[in-house]
Amino acid sequence: MSNGRSAVVVIDMINTYEHGDADLLLPSVEKALPAMGRLIHRAREHGVPVIYVNDNFGQWRSHHGEILESALAGARADLVEPLRPDGDSLFVVKARHSIFFETPLAYLLSQLDIDHITLCGQVTEQCVLYSALDAHIRHLQITVPEDAVAHIHADLAEAALKMMRTNMGATIQHSDAIQF
Amino acid sequence: MSNGRSAVVVIDMINTYEHGDADLLLPSVEKALPAMGRLIHRAREHGVPVIYVNDNFGQWRSHHGEILESALAGARADLVEPLRPDGDSLFVVKARHSIFFETPLAYLLSQLDIDHITLCGQVTEQCVLYSALDAHIRHLQITVPEDAVAHIHADLAEAALKMMRTNMGATIQHSDAIQF
Amino acid sequence: MSNGRSAVVVIDMINTYEHGDADLLLPSVEKALPAMGRLIHRAREHGVPVIYVNDNFGQWRSHHGEILESALAGARADLVEPLRPDGDSLFVVKARHSIFFETPLAYLLSQLDIDHITLCGQVTEQCVLYSALDAHIRHLQITVPEDAVAHIHADLAEAALKMMRTNMGATIQHSDAIQF
Amino acid sequence: MSNGRSAVVVIDMINTYEHGDADLLLPSVEKALPAMGRLIHRAREHGVPVIYVNDNFGQWRSHHGEILESALAGARADLVEPLRPDGDSLFVVKARHSIFFETPLAYLLSQLDIDHITLCGQVTEQCVLYSALDAHIRHLQITVPEDAVAHIHADLAEAALKMMRTNMGATIQHSDAIQF
Repeated sequence: MSNGRSAVVVIDMINTYEHGDADLLLPSVEKALPAMGRLIHRAREHGVPVIYVNDNFGQWRSHHGEILESALAGARADLVEPLRPDGDSLFVVKARHSIFFETPLAYLLSQLDIDHITLCGQVTEQCVLYSALDAHIRHLQITVPEDAVAHIHADLAEAALKMMRTNMGATIQHSDAIQF
Repeated sequence: MSNGRSAVVVIDMINTYEHGDADLLLPSVEKALPAMGRLIHRAREHGVPVIYVNDNFGQWRSHHGEILESALAGARADLVEPLRPDGDSLFVVKARHSIFFETPLAYLLSQLDIDHITLCGQVTEQCVLYSALDAHIRHLQITVPEDAVAHIHADLAEAALKMMRTNMGATIQHSDAIQF
Repeated sequence: MSNGRSAVVVIDMINTYEHGDADLLLPSVEKALPAMGRLIHRAREHGVPVIYVNDNFGQWRSHHGEILESALAGARADLVEPLRPDGDSLFVVKARHSIFFETPLAYLLSQLDIDHITLCGQVTEQCVLYSALDAHIRHLQITVPEDAVAHIHADLAEAALKMMRTNMGATIQHSDAIQF
Repeated sequence: MSNGRSAVVVIDMINTYEHGDADLLLPSVEKALPAMGRLIHRAREHGVPVIYVNDNFGQWRSHHGEILESALAGARADLVEPLRPDGDSLFVVKARHSIFFETPLAYLLSQLDIDHITLCGQVTEQCVLYSALDAHIRHLQITVPEDAVAHIHADLAEAALKMMRTNMGATIQHSDAIQF
């Protein structure tokens, strides 16, 4: 699908779901979780790097692995456990919405010669959209599996997917159709 | 010394010392270590944030706390243990020389309303110098305790301290003279 | 509307309209142009900085003032002339969609103590949306006058305005209701 | 000298020389000017891009070409005229010391497939040094012609050249030895 290498990026799925919009978000996460799991599993089988880029929720002590521990100790560990990073997973901490904003992700991708990223996770019309834009602005190719991203507002999520396809050249497709 | 808040930044001291210049660097680290330890101790006593900004040595799995574990398991754990982050320490991972390059440090400092940073650690004429520049370019005030930074080349370190004082407005002083 | 200062940012209106989507875009630009003109005029009267942030269209010779000259020499100079920068206008060149991506805008705003920007120009669902996101991520307050932004796709523009209001805390209002 | 393309970057030579250290700087500029002129001339003959990256001196109205006009109208136009940009020159405005800080230079270089930059101009131990660091951190190859850079403090300039050679892998050589 691209000349360089590909990676799967998992956005904000290491989560305690304690924020304000969780009620709107959770049904969509529950629905998309199996597709995310299958996608990550297939990526690992094919040796495609899986990069977790995750909000630090104001925790700046990444030497503690606090983010993952907090999420696994939370009320919705059932949504975290199936997507748990393994020993080969890469992990980048972000402080704000976009996976690229003041993070080393662009540098990491260039070091790994990756020019195509598949974005799964949440929230379609927020962090996924913003990250797709920041990828497009950096000339990276983008795939978004529409069944492996979760939303808060269905209408905005639909518009976000259309924006990514129309204005960012993203491939929007079913997760099982993605070939590694 | 400044109107906003102050922080102590500890650069690259979580280290396995397995790189090429370790032979030149180690005597200087051994000499500066006690001053670094006293400075960090006093900062903690005064409630001044201590922020470790550390090379990831190509390890991108910050959910594992690998960086600290590797250093504590290495041959020179004796140089790491005395400066070990505590439960309140902040920790930011960097991939390249400067503490600001593709890291969230600038964002973290602005969130904490910090406009003055005291830089200790290594290497005076490399990461410390580069980080001081990137702090100066962002209009942050800088203090460098000359006895709490370690160098590889003594002549370049001396020039680096002079550059920081002359061209970046940094205060260069003995660590014990720094008041919090 | 905010505690700090405010500025009006004019996005991509110095334009030759020679790109592929011009046919879809032009009717919306023609309709929004008078509101943009009134907004810029009122800002100037009130001493509110007007900052043009404009694509360089691959021209990297900003010593020539080529961007403005090209646009004024083009077939649609009638859409440029009414919004022409005056002697007090600020001008920042951008290479990609967002007004913040690899530009000095964030630095300029911080130097001018501006924490609130009013975005007008084009394209609502592209550069305006992306710029609003990058402003929000930097904790800037945002106002978007819905009659002073131009779109290519009406449905995506409507979704973009809703995203800015719902997810970025932007004030969406009629341009004449904006008070300086 | 590298696999990709090469460019010559001219730093801060479009200058009115009205700043505080001009007295120390001017003799060095006068001495280095002929070498800079020869280097730029040879680069143009060989089709090597010449990119001027210049402080904006707080002028944010790049649509006016003010920076060049001010310098050519100043008391030391004799130091600007010989290095004047021609119709093919590229021009990037910077607000602070480094040629990369909040400028589109990194983007421009990647678009032109340039991975090796030759830095000339001023000030050796300030903007040239800082720019070399920011180039090195981005994995660009660096050449610095020691006779085509100007300094304020001779001792710091000497240390800066040694830092670039020792710690940034830069090639330091006479300008006439540089082959395009």
